[in-house]
Amino acid sequence: MEGPSTASRAAATCVLLTLCLGCLHVIALRSKLFTRHGGLPSSPEPPISYETFYYDQRIDHFGFLEDGTFKQRYLVSAKQWKQPGGPILFYTGNEGDITWFCNNTGFMWEVAEELGAMLVFAEHRYYGESLPFGQDSYSDSKHLNYLTSEQALADFAVLIKSLKKTLPGAQHSPVIAVGGSYGGMLSAWFRMKYPNIVVGALAASAPIWPFPGMVPCGDFYKVVTQDFARSGLNCDSNIRKSWKAINNVSSSASGLQWLSEEFSLCSPLKNQNDIGSFKSWLQETWVNLAMVDYPYEANFLQPLPRWPIQVVCKNLAFDSPVPDHKLLHGVSQAAKVYYNFTGSASCLNTSQTATSSLGMLGWFYQACTEMVMPMCTDGVQDMFEPEEWNFQAFSDECNGMFGVRPRADWAGIVYGGKDIASHSNIIFSNGGLDPWSAGGVTHNITDSLVSIMIPDGAHHLDLRYSNDHDPPSVRQARALEVKYFREWIKQAKKKPHPA
Amino acid sequence: MEGPSTASRAAATCVLLTLCLGCLHVIALRSKLFTRHGGLPSSPEPPISYETFYYDQRIDHFGFLEDGTFKQRYLVSAKQWKQPGGPILFYTGNEGDITWFCNNTGFMWEVAEELGAMLVFAEHRYYGESLPFGQDSYSDSKHLNYLTSEQALADFAVLIKSLKKTLPGAQHSPVIAVGGSYGGMLSAWFRMKYPNIVVGALAASAPIWPFPGMVPCGDFYKVVTQDFARSGLNCDSNIRKSWKAINNVSSSASGLQWLSEEFSLCSPLKNQNDIGSFKSWLQETWVNLAMVDYPYEANFLQPLPRWPIQVVCKNLAFDSPVPDHKLLHGVSQAAKVYYNFTGSASCLNTSQTATSSLGMLGWFYQACTEMVMPMCTDGVQDMFEPEEWNFQAFSDECNGMFGVRPRADWAGIVYGGKDIASHSNIIFSNGGLDPWSAGGVTHNITDSLVSIMIPDGAHHLDLRYSNDHDPPSVRQARALEVKYFREWIKQAKKKPHPA
Repeated sequence: MEGPSTASRAAATCVLLTLCLGCLHVIALRSKLFTRHGGLPSSPEPPISYETFYYDQRIDHFGFLEDGTFKQRYLVSAKQWKQPGGPILFYTGNEGDITWFCNNTGFMWEVAEELGAMLVFAEHRYYGESLPFGQDSYSDSKHLNYLTSEQALADFAVLIKSLKKTLPGAQHSPVIAVGGSYGGMLSAWFRMKYPNIVVGALAASAPIWPFPGMVPCGDFYKVVTQDFARSGLNCDSNIRKSWKAINNVSSSASGLQWLSEEFSLCSPLKNQNDIGSFKSWLQETWVNLAMVDYPYEANFLQPLPRWPIQVVCKNLAFDSPVPDHKLLHGVSQAAKVYYNFTGSASCLNTSQTATSSLGMLGWFYQACTEMVMPMCTDGVQDMFEPEEWNFQAFSDECNGMFGVRPRADWAGIVYGGKDIASHSNIIFSNGGLDPWSAGGVTHNITDSLVSIMIPDGAHHLDLRYSNDHDPPSVRQARALEVKYFREWIKQAKKKPHPA
Repeated sequence: MEGPSTASRAAATCVLLTLCLGCLHVIALRSKLFTRHGGLPSSPEPPISYETFYYDQRIDHFGFLEDGTFKQRYLVSAKQWKQPGGPILFYTGNEGDITWFCNNTGFMWEVAEELGAMLVFAEHRYYGESLPFGQDSYSDSKHLNYLTSEQALADFAVLIKSLKKTLPGAQHSPVIAVGGSYGGMLSAWFRMKYPNIVVGALAASAPIWPFPGMVPCGDFYKVVTQDFARSGLNCDSNIRKSWKAINNVSSSASGLQWLSEEFSLCSPLKNQNDIGSFKSWLQETWVNLAMVDYPYEANFLQPLPRWPIQVVCKNLAFDSPVPDHKLLHGVSQAAKVYYNFTGSASCLNTSQTATSSLGMLGWFYQACTEMVMPMCTDGVQDMFEPEEWNFQAFSDECNGMFGVRPRADWAGIVYGGKDIASHSNIIFSNGGLDPWSAGGVTHNITDSLVSIMIPDGAHHLDLRYSNDHDPPSVRQARALEVKYFREWIKQAKKKPHPA
């Protein structure tokens, strides 16, 4: 039995990365901006209020031919700031609308007062409103050429330098970078590359090691599988069996119709060719659930119950072989936990990850250039159909789509790979439930490059608002993070200010 | 009395920087490649022998649209290398032909055996044979767009990664960056930006702080003046007087003719307009002498006697006011020490610094983009005509010449400016006689960011072959440098190899 064609799987994998790093959802959630997600009424949340600014940022920091600028959006909250010299917490925006990250990073809002900190959230170029060439930014590879992490880091550096120069009282303010997911990777790299600009970084759920040759390509899906295995009896093994059941059932026209009805699909499955993307859609569903397996009712990627995988797994607890249709009925009920917890969805849309939204395209381009993250499955240590990583097919796909080819080794060279011990003042926090922890730093490297593990945490739980249902591990993690912040601030205050 | 027009002075300053960082001379010396300079017969020199290779290097490391490659030249000497795992000393090539740097960095050749080190000399893109677009590389600002220090550092990183992957026995070899002048700046920055690639760096006579706001713009010329002041009675004050004398004498046609004959100029001075460049040429002459004021007969920029400024100053020792013609006769004799020590020059060419050679154009472009180094004189603390730094005029000049404008703040942001204390394992060596020490690191920053001062040294004397006339300070400097090398190598050997 074969999985989807390599090329389409390469694309699917990439879409999935997009999903996982949260850019697609930005689009879906755009209409909900300024609405905060994830807190429960029982946890009083400090009010979010910020001012929006735009900085004239250079389109190209690494060449002098293109001398144009664009408006980089950034949000500032100075209400709690103890000036002069109070610290600045600087969110290194990732692949989406910065207001969404602002609203989903309750941790920064909660610690601002005790640290007397100013909060700044800087939007990543090519996302949200920060489009270097306006509506043309995604028009072709020529316009996309300045969408790289190096350019984004340079934006952050230049912006901070400008803020410190122009904001009264900020000249000697120590700046700490904060980010989650790709934003966390940027935070870590920002401290590594610009230690003159930031005194330290909190890199939450930041997979800085998923690049070729750094971790086994199957580790990501192993973590997903473990989440399901621990959340309900036989849960992972029944999902593992489901792929064959889908193949069996979908081999007939009536089976295709049954599947379409069972899963309440908006677009019914027409033929065998649709099965590949149907299975990719399901696979992404399980991955997303692993990312947002939070201990309380929340709405990060979707509105979900607390510990959603446990709820999902109640539908997949068969302890003996069951007929394909029965198994797949369980799977459909499980999927609906994710897609229809509120009961408001009239049908499920399997092509929702294939939108051509800006955010998704942007991350797709980044995955096709620098952010080459090999993924594979073997069906034994994970619950998915076996699929090898095929760089050539991936590269061809990228070339077809953008006219660029990924450079597999570059991220490791420019950001140090596993050899980062000479850097300092970076916290790598990871959730034990989060599949991205597979590519994260989960052990202390030195006294000041430290790992904080949150065994019961999913994707950057520590960056979210505190909640009555938070496990002790995430409370401890946040306390430790603040402790490190204080140390870095103290170190910075001790240092003589360079002329 | 006015100096040359601001714009032409801006150009002159830039030419002078070119000169100072040694790129022009490369051109002049191209025919002498493989001939070593600077050693005396009394100092036995180990034989230089290397192999020449070319690496297919990406034209653009920071964008994916331009996917072309070019041949980067590098030289390898593995004769003394103790493999497996013996260290690699890697010269981070500066603005010129790499064979010239290879032949002028005797220090590396002398320490190779005791360290069991492989030597690699990597050519900087856009210089020597490493032309990204062949003969078109300098044709316009589009082709020049990839001439930046960041691209050059990325070249070095990628090359080293490849060498360690492909050379048997090199996989675990610690690499130490070595460079002088701009090459030293690159060495220091290489360690800062790629500590995963190099375990340490020797940045010899590397002015990493001459950028706007870091050191006073007049410091460079103050050091030049001090060199003349200490090398002969009234030497600096007579040079200070000479500018007015030139203005006086050149105010008549007969005076212009007399000056032309007195200085044996190849192209006689035609009118008052020529006087600006004539004075710039003289000013550069004094600067170059300050750079190469070596304690032994040497041929770095020109064939010169030992302690050449002392010889120059013998012609400028008037202890009371003298007539203009007498003073200028002394100046002409002094200039001829520099231009005609061997007696073989039939005339002196004041336009020699205005050649349109590749190397010079390249550095000029770099000065017009990233390497913005303000220079100024006041005629009081230095022996030159007062001239303020005029960024706007400089920027306009650059725009006219290349269609690009300099970014004054960028170098400070990307390379840390004065705030580099979080980095490690860099030696900054500086000569007390070298005007570039004014923009260098001349005090210890931390235990592992150390300054080595060589009070009697001119421009990176420590990188040259040892010589019987070497002052004790440079012998000690070299010994200390090797001691640090050994420490870094030891540290690296202790570290577990990342997977």
